[in-house]
Amino acid sequence: MEPVVIVTAAALIQYLFLAYQVSAARVKHGVRAPATTGHPEFERAFRIHQNTLEALVVFIPAMWMFGIYVHPLAAAAIGVLFPIGREVYRRSYLKDPSTRTPGSAISGVAMVTLLLGGLIGAVVSWL
Amino acid sequence: MEPVVIVTAAALIQYLFLAYQVSAARVKHGVRAPATTGHPEFERAFRIHQNTLEALVVFIPAMWMFGIYVHPLAAAAIGVLFPIGREVYRRSYLKDPSTRTPGSAISGVAMVTLLLGGLIGAVVSWL
Amino acid sequence: MEPVVIVTAAALIQYLFLAYQVSAARVKHGVRAPATTGHPEFERAFRIHQNTLEALVVFIPAMWMFGIYVHPLAAAAIGVLFPIGREVYRRSYLKDPSTRTPGSAISGVAMVTLLLGGLIGAVVSWL
Repeated sequence: MEPVVIVTAAALIQYLFLAYQVSAARVKHGVRAPATTGHPEFERAFRIHQNTLEALVVFIPAMWMFGIYVHPLAAAAIGVLFPIGREVYRRSYLKDPSTRTPGSAISGVAMVTLLLGGLIGAVVSWL
Repeated sequence: MEPVVIVTAAALIQYLFLAYQVSAARVKHGVRAPATTGHPEFERAFRIHQNTLEALVVFIPAMWMFGIYVHPLAAAAIGVLFPIGREVYRRSYLKDPSTRTPGSAISGVAMVTLLLGGLIGAVVSWL
Repeated sequence: MEPVVIVTAAALIQYLFLAYQVSAARVKHGVRAPATTGHPEFERAFRIHQNTLEALVVFIPAMWMFGIYVHPLAAAAIGVLFPIGREVYRRSYLKDPSTRTPGSAISGVAMVTLLLGGLIGAVVSWL
């Protein structure tokens, strides 16, 4: 399961960077906690981080289930598309939120493949 | 652990549907990213998804801990109440947010039972 | 892995208390769902809960990876700093959001140590 752990750590390190980006935008634009609105750049950084949180909650269990019930190296190979898609998403969202779909789709395909593959693997293993 | 994996996948597929419901409401009511307010129906869909995210972060580890330290099939049998409660929650919240408590309580009871049961199982196993 | 499970359960029980604190502030200040703004005390409770959610998504996988690939008791010993830091964060944030950094830093150091330690442990184990 080491490749799955390494991709998990990579996705989480990326996510911590997205959190840092929110803090930096908060300071830069004087958006004081607990406010989460007040400047477009802050709001974009905030939603990029938030949306990645929403996706990680599916991605991590899905990659682990695929790794356990299908194949660990295949899980990591598909899983590595997740942080790549998130970086595409981040760059496009910061420029123009309306262009965020392709990056989101790359991560989404990886996530759904791992989730459905892991589910099928577990069902087959159980029968 | 296969039954636990299957219930995990079911809860995550439901959660992806809740995310889709947010996107659909965003388009339908013209709420443009990064805004998360602007139309009551969108705001309800947004909070249903968000609240389910908040709960999944407890539910998934709790069901796995119960599955490992108490009993996997019992974990899945209790765990299946979680997506059922979430669907009750979703339907009532969309109609009227003030009626959201029963659905939330069904998921909450499953979640807390798994969490405390898993904790007790781990303590007993450690001693 | 029992000590890791026990610290996971402790952090999740604390997190459920933070969710309860949001509900209580919602009722107390008449902030009706789906609104997430409307009274400073509610907004602070809301962000404390939300920020803990954001951190748990890193903390739990990181402590488990460290527990599996480095040492379970060491993982739990470092991990116990997470809920302690969160409680410091909660108390300071409720009084004055601008004083939230120390509590956040305690949890953050635990989280990053577990994440990087777990990653190194997995890489060493794989080679």
